[in-house]
Amino acid sequence: MQISSSFRNIGLSQIVAISEQARVLAPDFESRTNKPFIYFQRGEVGYPAPSFLAEAFAEAFAKGATKYPKSGGEPYFKDAVIKEMEASGVQGIDRDNIVATYGGQEGLQLVFSMFRGATVAGFTPCWSCMFDNLMPYTDCKFLPVPLNEEDGWSIDWDLLESTIQNADIFYFNSPHNPTGRVFTSGEIVILSHLCARYGVLLVCDDAYKELIYDNGTIGHYSPLYDRAFENIVVVNTFSKSLAATGLRIGYAVSRRKDLIERMTLGDYSQTAGVSTPTQYAVSKALVHPDRKKWLATFKTEMESRANVLAENLDLVFMSGQKKPQGAFYLFCPVPSTLREEHFVSRLMSAGIAVVPGSAFGTEGYVRLSFSTLSSAMVEKGAKRFSEVYKNAMGGLSASRDEYVTV
Amino acid sequence: MQISSSFRNIGLSQIVAISEQARVLAPDFESRTNKPFIYFQRGEVGYPAPSFLAEAFAEAFAKGATKYPKSGGEPYFKDAVIKEMEASGVQGIDRDNIVATYGGQEGLQLVFSMFRGATVAGFTPCWSCMFDNLMPYTDCKFLPVPLNEEDGWSIDWDLLESTIQNADIFYFNSPHNPTGRVFTSGEIVILSHLCARYGVLLVCDDAYKELIYDNGTIGHYSPLYDRAFENIVVVNTFSKSLAATGLRIGYAVSRRKDLIERMTLGDYSQTAGVSTPTQYAVSKALVHPDRKKWLATFKTEMESRANVLAENLDLVFMSGQKKPQGAFYLFCPVPSTLREEHFVSRLMSAGIAVVPGSAFGTEGYVRLSFSTLSSAMVEKGAKRFSEVYKNAMGGLSASRDEYVTV
Repeated sequence: MQISSSFRNIGLSQIVAISEQARVLAPDFESRTNKPFIYFQRGEVGYPAPSFLAEAFAEAFAKGATKYPKSGGEPYFKDAVIKEMEASGVQGIDRDNIVATYGGQEGLQLVFSMFRGATVAGFTPCWSCMFDNLMPYTDCKFLPVPLNEEDGWSIDWDLLESTIQNADIFYFNSPHNPTGRVFTSGEIVILSHLCARYGVLLVCDDAYKELIYDNGTIGHYSPLYDRAFENIVVVNTFSKSLAATGLRIGYAVSRRKDLIERMTLGDYSQTAGVSTPTQYAVSKALVHPDRKKWLATFKTEMESRANVLAENLDLVFMSGQKKPQGAFYLFCPVPSTLREEHFVSRLMSAGIAVVPGSAFGTEGYVRLSFSTLSSAMVEKGAKRFSEVYKNAMGGLSASRDEYVTV
Repeated sequence: MQISSSFRNIGLSQIVAISEQARVLAPDFESRTNKPFIYFQRGEVGYPAPSFLAEAFAEAFAKGATKYPKSGGEPYFKDAVIKEMEASGVQGIDRDNIVATYGGQEGLQLVFSMFRGATVAGFTPCWSCMFDNLMPYTDCKFLPVPLNEEDGWSIDWDLLESTIQNADIFYFNSPHNPTGRVFTSGEIVILSHLCARYGVLLVCDDAYKELIYDNGTIGHYSPLYDRAFENIVVVNTFSKSLAATGLRIGYAVSRRKDLIERMTLGDYSQTAGVSTPTQYAVSKALVHPDRKKWLATFKTEMESRANVLAENLDLVFMSGQKKPQGAFYLFCPVPSTLREEHFVSRLMSAGIAVVPGSAFGTEGYVRLSFSTLSSAMVEKGAKRFSEVYKNAMGGLSASRDEYVTV
């Protein structure tokens, strides 16, 4: 009896390996230099969960919400999700369009497992978990559609269209990990049209939709706004929007009830459903009077960290854009004098952990996450990063263009 | 793009269909007869979760245990599990032998998924979820090894040995759902030897191990007691032992660290790990000073319901044993005058919901679960059940043997 290919081919994320290396090296670095080690590699949310979430859990237990969950999710949980969606502009969704999941991860895994062996196209760079876990676990094949850094991580439409014709599913994530790019409504409408034209299932990962730093000029656009497009599954999580990655709760929503029915049975088959007290607590937390204020404060804090990062990074980006538009990542080019792995090592020696771009399918970059560090630490980190960058460039200004002309 | 066979072939349990029927019929029955509807179909735990569990959740939030869980489970959760296992007599288990799971269900699903397409032998009657969900979801094939009711649901050793030779995995569950049988240490040792001889992975489902009603004469025997047997995965859940089926937390343990490593990656791939506050709370609840007393009281209550059921069922069992030895089920023969489905309908008309034996792979029986009803309701239910049974037998004493001799 052989272990199945899906279980053989999955692996630990490179981010875990980097974190482990940082854990080992940090104490020595800190005692030797008397400087703090900068953890720019973590995709964790460094912000406390709201106190009303803890209260909602206490209420869940007081009300006895500890029995088996209803398959696919409790009606009150689904109703809270529907209310949020309607407020955001998505109409015509009822309980049969929703399945509660263990975070966005289970939502995605269920979609890809449902179409085991499918061909999945997606923009690169792409969330590393797709390569390390979701694709191999579901025996799916990934077709990359590289974004163009030169043009602010823009879409190559011809490449997208030619690739999508060979795909079953398109994986889309906005705000985008790892670039921090927020796609416009125009781009998303065209993407929806292309998917519809070629019969491709559009899978949208909305994990970061509450974290857009544009003062309302871009905003989050959901392809669900337009009821004409049915062949879409949107996956969401409360990991970020309640600053509680450890809760493991989210949902998948689709106008295709046939898919939601199958995903409900899939979720039941693998876990017997999502934790009842968690569903209860989250449904209360979503409608809590303090939630909007809490979310605004959380977003302001994340944006101020993004600003501090951009202001203190002394290097010129080809994209012309240093500040991420959303999420809590910046995808930063490697100095042209160095190979990616050497730059990562050099940063590590200088007390900075980052994730190499190759983990996201795009070499020549590193991802900086500013979500776990205070603004003061982000500032220290950005300054130190710039120094390492400049030293790598031999004292030149940290611009690849200048280097190229030398 | 086609939905995969595993997602096409899974379905809702017959228990859900029966529960839905009961939900619809019960109000009319109750208003018409002024008698309570008896829900004997539910596998739910009708007993409140301990108050120290709610307190432990509050502590989890106070301590900020809301961030991403460590892959495979938090060290403190694993340590609490190891402590419990050592106290029960299982030695030599460390953190790398354990993976935290969403209940017993995810533990089993991960094992079967890891060996997708394997041939799984198991005793019948067998937990219905194996047929409705776990086998089709993992593309596994089930080989039944029927237990003999005549002899107290005994094992046919020749049949077991000949079947096991054609299997990759043996699924074993003691205390046993749906018969309430507890297998002896002698039986389990022989089973372990047979699995070892034929290179079969033994998968033990320990969901009901805390619920054995034998005053210490049988007790729970784990094949992990003997370190010579390595090719074993034991799956457990806290659904019953904390009376909180909705918590969705359990674990899988194996001396084969290679399997636990793969299951850890599988769990990460599908859910990103088990809820951190839940792991924190359960690890505290397991070592709480009141836990042993609480568990004893819970068990006493379940046993008293078992006694009331046995005392008030006016029918003779071929097995000679009316009282379940463990778990909270009784697998009861259908009157020989009726087909199973007709008996189930007749009971439903009389205000009693039960699950047909065919849901467990063994026709001619119904499963009565006494876990959700108070002793007073169990008594009412048992008496009414006996009446329906006797009426079906045309007024004869409710014994199949007597009927056969008429």
